[in-house]
Amino acid sequence: MSGPVPRAFVSRFHSKSKDSSEALATAAKLPEAEPVPPVTPRQRITVQDILDRRTKAGRLVAPTAAACDADMFKAPSVGKPKAKIWDHNHLSAEAIVREPCKLKAAARFLKTPGIISLGGGLPCPEYFPFSSISMKVPTPSDFHESAPTETVTINKYDASLGNTDAEYDLSIGLNYAQAHGSAQMMRFVTEHTELVHSPPYADWKTCLTVGSTGALEQTLRMLCDRDRNDAILTEEFSFSTALETAGPLGMKVVGIKMDEQGLLPESMDEILSSWNPAERGGSRKPHVLYTVPSGQNPTGATQSEQRRREVYAVAQKHDVFIVEDEPYYFLQMQDSGKPAPRNVDEFLDRLVPSLLSMDVDGRVLRMDSFSKCVVPGSRLGWITASAQVVERYIRHAEVANQGPSGFSQVILHKLLDETWGHEGYLKWLMNLSMEYTQRRDTLLAACEKFLPKEVASWSSPKAGMFFWVNLNHELHPHASTKGILDVEEEIFNSCIKRGALVARGSWFRAEQDKPPTGLFFRATFAAATPENMTEAIRRFGEAIKESYGL
Amino acid sequence: MSGPVPRAFVSRFHSKSKDSSEALATAAKLPEAEPVPPVTPRQRITVQDILDRRTKAGRLVAPTAAACDADMFKAPSVGKPKAKIWDHNHLSAEAIVREPCKLKAAARFLKTPGIISLGGGLPCPEYFPFSSISMKVPTPSDFHESAPTETVTINKYDASLGNTDAEYDLSIGLNYAQAHGSAQMMRFVTEHTELVHSPPYADWKTCLTVGSTGALEQTLRMLCDRDRNDAILTEEFSFSTALETAGPLGMKVVGIKMDEQGLLPESMDEILSSWNPAERGGSRKPHVLYTVPSGQNPTGATQSEQRRREVYAVAQKHDVFIVEDEPYYFLQMQDSGKPAPRNVDEFLDRLVPSLLSMDVDGRVLRMDSFSKCVVPGSRLGWITASAQVVERYIRHAEVANQGPSGFSQVILHKLLDETWGHEGYLKWLMNLSMEYTQRRDTLLAACEKFLPKEVASWSSPKAGMFFWVNLNHELHPHASTKGILDVEEEIFNSCIKRGALVARGSWFRAEQDKPPTGLFFRATFAAATPENMTEAIRRFGEAIKESYGL
Repeated sequence: MSGPVPRAFVSRFHSKSKDSSEALATAAKLPEAEPVPPVTPRQRITVQDILDRRTKAGRLVAPTAAACDADMFKAPSVGKPKAKIWDHNHLSAEAIVREPCKLKAAARFLKTPGIISLGGGLPCPEYFPFSSISMKVPTPSDFHESAPTETVTINKYDASLGNTDAEYDLSIGLNYAQAHGSAQMMRFVTEHTELVHSPPYADWKTCLTVGSTGALEQTLRMLCDRDRNDAILTEEFSFSTALETAGPLGMKVVGIKMDEQGLLPESMDEILSSWNPAERGGSRKPHVLYTVPSGQNPTGATQSEQRRREVYAVAQKHDVFIVEDEPYYFLQMQDSGKPAPRNVDEFLDRLVPSLLSMDVDGRVLRMDSFSKCVVPGSRLGWITASAQVVERYIRHAEVANQGPSGFSQVILHKLLDETWGHEGYLKWLMNLSMEYTQRRDTLLAACEKFLPKEVASWSSPKAGMFFWVNLNHELHPHASTKGILDVEEEIFNSCIKRGALVARGSWFRAEQDKPPTGLFFRATFAAATPENMTEAIRRFGEAIKESYGL
Repeated sequence: MSGPVPRAFVSRFHSKSKDSSEALATAAKLPEAEPVPPVTPRQRITVQDILDRRTKAGRLVAPTAAACDADMFKAPSVGKPKAKIWDHNHLSAEAIVREPCKLKAAARFLKTPGIISLGGGLPCPEYFPFSSISMKVPTPSDFHESAPTETVTINKYDASLGNTDAEYDLSIGLNYAQAHGSAQMMRFVTEHTELVHSPPYADWKTCLTVGSTGALEQTLRMLCDRDRNDAILTEEFSFSTALETAGPLGMKVVGIKMDEQGLLPESMDEILSSWNPAERGGSRKPHVLYTVPSGQNPTGATQSEQRRREVYAVAQKHDVFIVEDEPYYFLQMQDSGKPAPRNVDEFLDRLVPSLLSMDVDGRVLRMDSFSKCVVPGSRLGWITASAQVVERYIRHAEVANQGPSGFSQVILHKLLDETWGHEGYLKWLMNLSMEYTQRRDTLLAACEKFLPKEVASWSSPKAGMFFWVNLNHELHPHASTKGILDVEEEIFNSCIKRGALVARGSWFRAEQDKPPTGLFFRATFAAATPENMTEAIRRFGEAIKESYGL
């Protein structure tokens, strides 16, 4: 916590200090429902385990549009419970009635030896105008942009002709595929998920997505119904695009109070325990929580391990399904002065465990993405959830998009699987987290230097890309006549005039129809150069000072 | 028309010959409503016009996440009417309330000179692990797979550093983008659309899509409402994935009778004129037609120009919005014996005009795709519709997927725009249509040779990838005890056993709850080699003969 008014900042998160103490009073009653899973050291499989498993399994033979399943790539789940069934009380009307895509399902007949298919309208790769795609990529020994690169090439028939060790090629990757994505990329993300999260129930599955934006829309349509007056829970400040996704679907969004560690379990419990549809415009008691546990957008808050366990316990108590959106999970940073992790095991050990890793019930749908860790333009990510939920998700993906781009899949597979491998990718992520740590520290230093601490306060984020700056509206000289939104607009416009773009806190308010509870701005340290970031914060500081007459 | 029972085949399309004559009786009354637009030679802009326009406009400067609009790339629309407004009677509840994505909208401030953005969480391209992507592609002089290729390269900062003529690069293409896609690809598809279709109203727009599968789902959600009991019209045999898209959304699908030219306008008119919600399970009179005018999936039928004008007139009469799905548009074939077009102008002149090219009202949303013409794995296409409709579509795309993959966009742009140009791409399409003509003729010859004409009939498709084979169920020796679906299943399974996969006609029935009206199979000539295609049809013929005891 930096700046001189930390308590004010925290209480702003709670809307009003009265509410905040009420929330804390509720908290004491929390762990009644079901026992919180014990905090034990995670037992992970290792990269070597995966390499051994692959050697044993032999070459992956997965031709055009091959169906696959995460179970093909997981360790056997010995002694783990099965996920709960998310029956009609959770799934939406459209999710329940979906049937498999007949043409995709017909692919099962292609396994018949010697069969000639005149079935699906799959173009002949002869007509694909790409005989090879090459790319220059860094090697895991040095990830600096100006370091030497190696050139790797994907040919059209590398795998299909069977005369190389290759398991994937353009003739497969650029044709139609199953909606869950290629077996080749499914193997990579499944192994990666087991390596990092090792979900504690047996029948977890994965499915590639067109990125987490699309995955969220599909998930909300799968879990919520306009006709059922469904409402969803989220942080009181939440990712604006998520809010823009839910609104038009007729879902009421309910904000949970937050502190520096993100959403408050006691606030969540209080909302659910006291839910009265009549007071909530007829909305049904929420059965879905959408949360960004690490480097939350927009507040930058990161839930500690204990916080996550408490959130999970409240979800169990009220039978809430959790959508865990984790684009910034690997952008968890080192505390100032703490040395970098020495190897990927230490890197993984320092990560706050995910909700997925605590999910004994199979009540979490986790969304991962390559947008922040590789490139946003891949429009490629994946979900992990129970077999039932993933099956329904795939049925929707068959008609919503047919899965992600083949270019994205074949290129990311070449880089992550064939060139870097799991260890190399984890090294890349570790390097990235160190780069973001530096960027955060640059922005932090600029805030310390240029923002007026008399009115501004902020936390140093432990993950992600975002700084959340709180201005004390009560100290504004015209607070009595200019409301929070007016001052916000004045400072925003003044910033633009001075040549700095920051995001307005009000864009992220989960409940737009309620009066604003605080004056916030979001600044990212992801995009600009260190010099520009510093200069932009200087301009932002000038805009604040002018408005406050400092 | 081939085989000895053409009339039976046609009447099968009509369900029963009685219905068919009723439909024809209705037809005479057709052109009462509004005048059918006159058949005039299309006046197109030329490739040279576009080149001139680009020269005049100068280098396209479109940095990361630049917003754009088709109007930037179109000829001025002089004297053309504006599209009608598709108000609340057509748009769905969710489409009406969508608001612009706040974070995407903030991109407009980036135009402020000297501005530094701490706004959007866009990763720095410094961390993109691709310094270049190269690909080997054919040159427009010779498109044969074994012909010489050239290698073209996209570097990370080709355009951004401004020291080359390049207008697009990896630092732009692989970052976040607007949901309508990059300005670079938007320019290409807008120019291409004007070149081929020249829509007759002023305010037509384009928007990239994640392929037509996703575009259809978005479009149906934009136009139809479960709460409003919306129903949609389509061909009585329709693309099964489209049916699987509409069903779970609670939309009733109504099949229009067909002949060799696809849907019958008189049947469409009759359905709409006599619509009675009470007899239709409460469904509202349909206000949306989903049609595949060229090489229809599954029947292979292609609507003639006159047929399209009649369909359009019925849509005008009943105020129906048309979703024109045209993945096979450029796979229109040459009649047997007719020489190949001599140049791209002749190629374009021979194409049956699109519904979009006749759309004086702006009541058509056309879906185009690169899946069949470049690679399916691009998951990239585009829509063309009125400004109002495209704006609503983009609002949805912002939360449904954020637009197509950047890899797909940057690679297709390099190939289609920078390397081939419009003329080269049209030559590619022309070459492809000739290749498919040959493939069709191979399958046709195999059918003539191996299918028992006593019971089997078919048409030679004028476009697309599909052959539709009709078997006369009445001639089956066990017709009285084995229904249509039983015989279909028997022959399908027998085919699989013999090593041939064809698609069952019943998979494509628009109204699955009605009794089947005919016994059909779909075979594609897209995928297999000529030898394998011939062999598969031989096996298919054996399966039919066995079932019929021939």
